[in-house]
Amino acid sequence: MTFVKTEIRSGAYYDSVVLMHLQRSLSQQPGVSDAGVVMGTEANKDLLAQSNLLVDEARGAGANDLVIVVKGEDESSVQAAIAKVDELIAARRSGGVDQEYRSQSLESAAKRLPNAQWVLVSVPGRYAAGVARQALDLNKHVFLYSDNVSLDDEIALKQEAASKGLIVMGPDCGTAIVNGVGLGFANKVRRGPIGVVAASGTGLQQVTVRIHQMGGGLTHALGTGGRDLSEEVNAVTARQSLDLLRRDPDTKVIVLVSKPPSPKVAAELIEAARRVGKPVVVNFIGYATAMRRVDNVTFATTFDETAELAVQLSHPSGQNGGGLDPAKFSSGQRYLRGLFSGGTLAYEAQLILRDYLPTVYSNAPLKKELRLADSLTSQEHSLIDLGEDEFTVGRLHPMLDNDLRIRRLDKEAGDPQVAVILLDVVLGYGAHPNPASELTPAIAKARQTAADGGRHLEVVAVVSGTDEDPQNMADQIRALKEAGAVVETSNDVAARSVGRVLRALNQTSQAAQSPFVEVDLSAIKQPLSAINVGLDSFTESLVAQAAEVVHVDWRPAAGGNEKMMDILARMKRKA
Amino acid sequence: MTFVKTEIRSGAYYDSVVLMHLQRSLSQQPGVSDAGVVMGTEANKDLLAQSNLLVDEARGAGANDLVIVVKGEDESSVQAAIAKVDELIAARRSGGVDQEYRSQSLESAAKRLPNAQWVLVSVPGRYAAGVARQALDLNKHVFLYSDNVSLDDEIALKQEAASKGLIVMGPDCGTAIVNGVGLGFANKVRRGPIGVVAASGTGLQQVTVRIHQMGGGLTHALGTGGRDLSEEVNAVTARQSLDLLRRDPDTKVIVLVSKPPSPKVAAELIEAARRVGKPVVVNFIGYATAMRRVDNVTFATTFDETAELAVQLSHPSGQNGGGLDPAKFSSGQRYLRGLFSGGTLAYEAQLILRDYLPTVYSNAPLKKELRLADSLTSQEHSLIDLGEDEFTVGRLHPMLDNDLRIRRLDKEAGDPQVAVILLDVVLGYGAHPNPASELTPAIAKARQTAADGGRHLEVVAVVSGTDEDPQNMADQIRALKEAGAVVETSNDVAARSVGRVLRALNQTSQAAQSPFVEVDLSAIKQPLSAINVGLDSFTESLVAQAAEVVHVDWRPAAGGNEKMMDILARMKRKA
Repeated sequence: MTFVKTEIRSGAYYDSVVLMHLQRSLSQQPGVSDAGVVMGTEANKDLLAQSNLLVDEARGAGANDLVIVVKGEDESSVQAAIAKVDELIAARRSGGVDQEYRSQSLESAAKRLPNAQWVLVSVPGRYAAGVARQALDLNKHVFLYSDNVSLDDEIALKQEAASKGLIVMGPDCGTAIVNGVGLGFANKVRRGPIGVVAASGTGLQQVTVRIHQMGGGLTHALGTGGRDLSEEVNAVTARQSLDLLRRDPDTKVIVLVSKPPSPKVAAELIEAARRVGKPVVVNFIGYATAMRRVDNVTFATTFDETAELAVQLSHPSGQNGGGLDPAKFSSGQRYLRGLFSGGTLAYEAQLILRDYLPTVYSNAPLKKELRLADSLTSQEHSLIDLGEDEFTVGRLHPMLDNDLRIRRLDKEAGDPQVAVILLDVVLGYGAHPNPASELTPAIAKARQTAADGGRHLEVVAVVSGTDEDPQNMADQIRALKEAGAVVETSNDVAARSVGRVLRALNQTSQAAQSPFVEVDLSAIKQPLSAINVGLDSFTESLVAQAAEVVHVDWRPAAGGNEKMMDILARMKRKA
Repeated sequence: MTFVKTEIRSGAYYDSVVLMHLQRSLSQQPGVSDAGVVMGTEANKDLLAQSNLLVDEARGAGANDLVIVVKGEDESSVQAAIAKVDELIAARRSGGVDQEYRSQSLESAAKRLPNAQWVLVSVPGRYAAGVARQALDLNKHVFLYSDNVSLDDEIALKQEAASKGLIVMGPDCGTAIVNGVGLGFANKVRRGPIGVVAASGTGLQQVTVRIHQMGGGLTHALGTGGRDLSEEVNAVTARQSLDLLRRDPDTKVIVLVSKPPSPKVAAELIEAARRVGKPVVVNFIGYATAMRRVDNVTFATTFDETAELAVQLSHPSGQNGGGLDPAKFSSGQRYLRGLFSGGTLAYEAQLILRDYLPTVYSNAPLKKELRLADSLTSQEHSLIDLGEDEFTVGRLHPMLDNDLRIRRLDKEAGDPQVAVILLDVVLGYGAHPNPASELTPAIAKARQTAADGGRHLEVVAVVSGTDEDPQNMADQIRALKEAGAVVETSNDVAARSVGRVLRALNQTSQAAQSPFVEVDLSAIKQPLSAINVGLDSFTESLVAQAAEVVHVDWRPAAGGNEKMMDILARMKRKA
């Protein structure tokens, strides 16, 4: 025989820690087999039902009612347990954070700790926006742990913060590491040169933990909250965070992690990441990208891979070589002409160039809108595959017969808008026994034609071959260089190098007017000092990490009556 | 003053090498400034026009007419040059391949070289299918270099080959390496454990060259031709090649390169690649994938990256650890239940599992069709994010309060269809001070429940933390293991390991009935022996590589009259 007894308490506020401990304490009372202590939401009542704890009495409870259910073998034990509820709550309340760290209000805490840059907010969602607004009024950055905060509140808070040079991490920001100190849920990780910006909680934790496990270390890990990268919020916090880490001299590599954002926000953030200059590893979890790397931005698909790449990149290696100098060209020179003998090389080059030049025309284009009207006439950026069927009827492949390519090279060199000509030179059995012997006079002549017109023409040649090929690769490369060509042995490297210089030549100065006031580096560079409003354990963690902290003994104003609270808050702000 | 003289020759056949040399020789005649020797296609006439070589006389020439144009300073020089055409052609014809390697027909060549596995075909496109068909009739594999071969011919040739255990590389297969010998255009690359299957020419060359440059080496590189991966051709050659390399004991890592195939063909080939067992690096150039790795298949986006991955993977490292054993489970056990506290960990796990289990339901699903009807009730494979807002109203986050998770674990363990339970255990500041203390009794009990029902329940725990976290990670891991859990520190590794075992438990035996007769390994494992029909230079390359070769002095039958040739071919086949 089991007895179940229920008590409903309306309108009273208890924090979640108190409720968890109450439930545990009740379960451990003599003669009690199970207990439930929950707010009366539908989901919570369903959960009670699953544990056979939902009796009729509790079914009528609402979301603001506290439901206490005790199950036991005999009526008197159950009764006795229920009778102890107030005593158990009081016992818990007197525990927790040491008195010395406590303040009664955010205002008084701020006075006690005037250097505090951050306010941690972990009060229930429906009160959280109000507390965050108070913190912004006090000119504090906000770590907003609370969930169940409305999208409108999030947008308003972030807009206001951005206009004041403040940052709001969250809502639903479970974790962050600021200047070595973990906020909310955070692992203890080695300090080092990697900075993380992540939308969510455990994603950030998993990445930082794996970085640590792989021997790397972190400067900061900034959380944005799961909705930050939506079009509505428009990634305000992510942009601020990227910008902070860009300016932080100790951060050498940046990691950006988020669930897949909208394509618009994704494209803008990738663009922002490219402007950062430092290596950035982007993991838009499950967001498919055609390329794995664009300039300084590398894409990863899992947390493990993200961590691995970040650690690799944080070991300086000087991966990006010389590169072409945009300053050498005359004004008006801005176009690429690619003259390829290899179809797949031409294809890969177009694919890589797509990240640098939006429009590259071709007779073998990536998509049909980019098809040249006439294969014999280049327009703007054009890349010709001379091995296409149209050119090989009754004629040898261009890897054997350079005649067509040389005629075309001559023609392109005369175009005053052409800055770079990109060629492949494929060695190996079957190919021309000495392609350089034919190409070098043509390259030298092309460069001379440009020089005669007062221009600098860059000819970039990709030599595809091995040191064992019959042509003698080293000799081929030497001859091409002597003719003035820039020589690469990787199509990838060549296309990127060409892409970068042409992007520079075609860039209209768009200094990306920042829509928000720059966040001062002191937010992350000064020793962390914080005010915690909400969960005791967050204060305890900060104490354990030797960070300066004051805990606010927060209770909802007006006994949790939201309408009343709202009125009070407005009055306060006006004052 | 310039003079241009044109000569048109109708219906005569000359191979492209002869034409190239004729053009060069004419250009070098005294008093000649430029010359053009082309078949009279529209594209070629346009090209002549660009070089100011198209006079009215040539405009009327058709695709089967040879157009010879000579430009020079005076009429007599031009006249003299034209008069030498026959002499120049004859001079070239007597050069080229040594007499000892020559045969007059494919049949006689096959008799001279009965061991020849391969016939190389590089005759003009309109004759190529006929020669390839002859080669198949002689039970030879075909390397079909020629382009301008019709799609219908390609399909017919490949179907016929597949039904006989033969392979047709191409058409438009520029390159291949068989047993260390380069066919067509091919680089001299180190021998080693990497096998390549590639659709196209220079893509294959660039990958093999980069592998060599990075210190790696190759077994074989098989070409399929650019259209092989279309839905019409259905990747016949790619499938045969993958299968050959799967069975080749010397190939340890396989590379598969192609322009993006149709999604259907791509999915089927990836599936085939997974069945290979050996590591496979796939580069469907520009084909966006959400994941970078599925089991043994890794995706690359550029040739450089492809080569790099292949070389890395060819150094044995034992990357795949123990793994779970599908044999331990009872029949009927086939489902996963994931009980996560971390939202992003739950998200990543679903994303990774998608490659193993088509349908994983969740309360925080990847797409809305996969949303659980009721978050409290699992169905089939289910993964629950217990940190979702619905569960946290008035309740602590599951990283602090394990109560809900333990109740759910208990329930799932009682389901006889459940095989694996996947949990995360997040350590760090702010999280539960000793999660193992609560989870281990629950895990032990869950496993006991299953055992009592005669089942094996695998509980896999991802511990996310560092060795400096306040919980003592090593102790947490030890305790979880003692309770019978399999512990991983990477969400990625855990999800893949769980995915693999569940995929095995849910696989209906689909031994992928091969639609074609298996190609005998002798095609690639015996010393290469070949008959070359077409370009002299291909024979010369084979001789240079010390491969056995006979060159066929091919001329189109019936003087190149295709209707007549077709009739002759049919008569021959019937005989």
